[in-house]
Amino acid sequence: MQACSEFDLIARHLSHLGACRDDVLQGVGDDAAVVMPSGNPLAMALDTVIEGVHFPVNLPARSVGWRALAVNLSDLAAMGATPCWGLLGLTLPVMDECWVAEFAAGLHELACLHHLTIIGGDVTRGPRSVTLQVTGHLTDQALRRDGVQPGDRVWVSGRLGEAAEGLASWQAAAETVIDNPLVQRFLYPTPRIALGCALQGVATAAIDISDGLLADAGHLAAQSGVALTLDPACLAGSARLRAEAGDERARERVLRGGDDYELCFTAPSSADAQVKSAAQSTKTAVTCIGYAKAGAGLWLNGLRIDASRAGYQHF
Amino acid sequence: MQACSEFDLIARHLSHLGACRDDVLQGVGDDAAVVMPSGNPLAMALDTVIEGVHFPVNLPARSVGWRALAVNLSDLAAMGATPCWGLLGLTLPVMDECWVAEFAAGLHELACLHHLTIIGGDVTRGPRSVTLQVTGHLTDQALRRDGVQPGDRVWVSGRLGEAAEGLASWQAAAETVIDNPLVQRFLYPTPRIALGCALQGVATAAIDISDGLLADAGHLAAQSGVALTLDPACLAGSARLRAEAGDERARERVLRGGDDYELCFTAPSSADAQVKSAAQSTKTAVTCIGYAKAGAGLWLNGLRIDASRAGYQHF
Repeated sequence: MQACSEFDLIARHLSHLGACRDDVLQGVGDDAAVVMPSGNPLAMALDTVIEGVHFPVNLPARSVGWRALAVNLSDLAAMGATPCWGLLGLTLPVMDECWVAEFAAGLHELACLHHLTIIGGDVTRGPRSVTLQVTGHLTDQALRRDGVQPGDRVWVSGRLGEAAEGLASWQAAAETVIDNPLVQRFLYPTPRIALGCALQGVATAAIDISDGLLADAGHLAAQSGVALTLDPACLAGSARLRAEAGDERARERVLRGGDDYELCFTAPSSADAQVKSAAQSTKTAVTCIGYAKAGAGLWLNGLRIDASRAGYQHF
Repeated sequence: MQACSEFDLIARHLSHLGACRDDVLQGVGDDAAVVMPSGNPLAMALDTVIEGVHFPVNLPARSVGWRALAVNLSDLAAMGATPCWGLLGLTLPVMDECWVAEFAAGLHELACLHHLTIIGGDVTRGPRSVTLQVTGHLTDQALRRDGVQPGDRVWVSGRLGEAAEGLASWQAAAETVIDNPLVQRFLYPTPRIALGCALQGVATAAIDISDGLLADAGHLAAQSGVALTLDPACLAGSARLRAEAGDERARERVLRGGDDYELCFTAPSSADAQVKSAAQSTKTAVTCIGYAKAGAGLWLNGLRIDASRAGYQHF
């Protein structure tokens, strides 16, 4: 614990995070930040991550900073929005300047990748947690959760289940497995901003997978008033995941593992070429995992899944 | 603890908080909210309040909801902004639906008074805390902290020190003093939104007083590069405060008590009539408490105050 006040800490490590943007008229340092919106609609999200609940206590500070922003950017990606501004609420049990410097570096790195500026926020003392609020521009219709049409195909980005297996490896062995690619997938998830933007006008609906595929696909089905049927042949997991976890656990990770921050989206089969073009232009793998039909619920192997019990339950 | 999931809780108590607004295109229920900005600059603030740090553990839930929004609206008031949207990050140790209903009622009541809509957010499990992010429109130049000019008068709104005395009474006797007007001032502070708006184009600088007058006036002096001299005759405290606290403690509460969420602002003496007119039209008491001159620091009774040590220190 070094001698450093809340104000020193902000000035040294938290006052210039992320990209420089011309539309930020007043950044950190006044009662509120001031920005100039572009005239397009704005998408706004806020997520809190808490030590011991959303991430293990020994997580590298750089990962905590990266992930806190990534989980929020993933929400913007699922709307098809382009990030612009963020506000940071950082709560720390003690003043540990080294921890804050590493945390800031992780947050800064991901913010710069997406041309986002941290324009303000708050530092308080308490159990370690990070809240970020992010805003993005929408240049087309937002990708909502309630737009799935019967006949649509269901798609996912990336390689589901790897982050959940990576978290388990980290919890078992921490620093000794930090270079494991699956652990890296947990520590530094990739919000699918470019894919989300490219899917505007193509996808009929989208959600980001934070609580596991079954839980989040269940939200799409329920909010759209359709049935989604998933194809088990497409949900075996990546070769890398199966090699580490074995076939049975790999499948469980794909279906119920959280923390992937991939997109689950739907599009009519007539848009297959456009979906593949969006994936290719944004260098993002996408996989068709099922289809929508009239009805209700989430279906796998002919059985209806209780999606409300499939994801992480906070209470 | 009642059987109620995070999703039930949001649907029942947190999905329709505050006013209805035409510029909210998508509220609670998707990955992010979608709003349509007006074309004016936006002021954005975020503040976290934590049980046991920012408010006592036995505080009525309705007050926790009201105060969490009030401290954020106070930041918008200090910029001269008009509130429009908020996002809520609520962290709870257990699922207590009664507590959440009361919390929501307090937040809803203040949000409606300022025509603000809670458009989204997040509910998580952890030590009780509330983060709010609020956005407001600016129809004129923002009131900044760095605009004080030598010769300006220093003004404050309301009756400083009452909230700090109210907090002390609450901590000593809780429910038995809940009707005490000073306790009510702590439980339900009034963000000075109308006054802040009326001061646009009149005040040269403004800050909200959350950490005590000396600490916050010190920020104005430092960020504007001027000296502020305060007049002790104007800082004795209200009759009500002196009656409860006695003269000596009353003065201490005025100077160093936090939680007032009043505005401290400056304006040239040529604008006295405009300041009084702004106060009258918004039914807000204002008091001139000093003046600015070339130099540095905060001065009282001929002594320079170390403002960096005057306020609440988080670490």
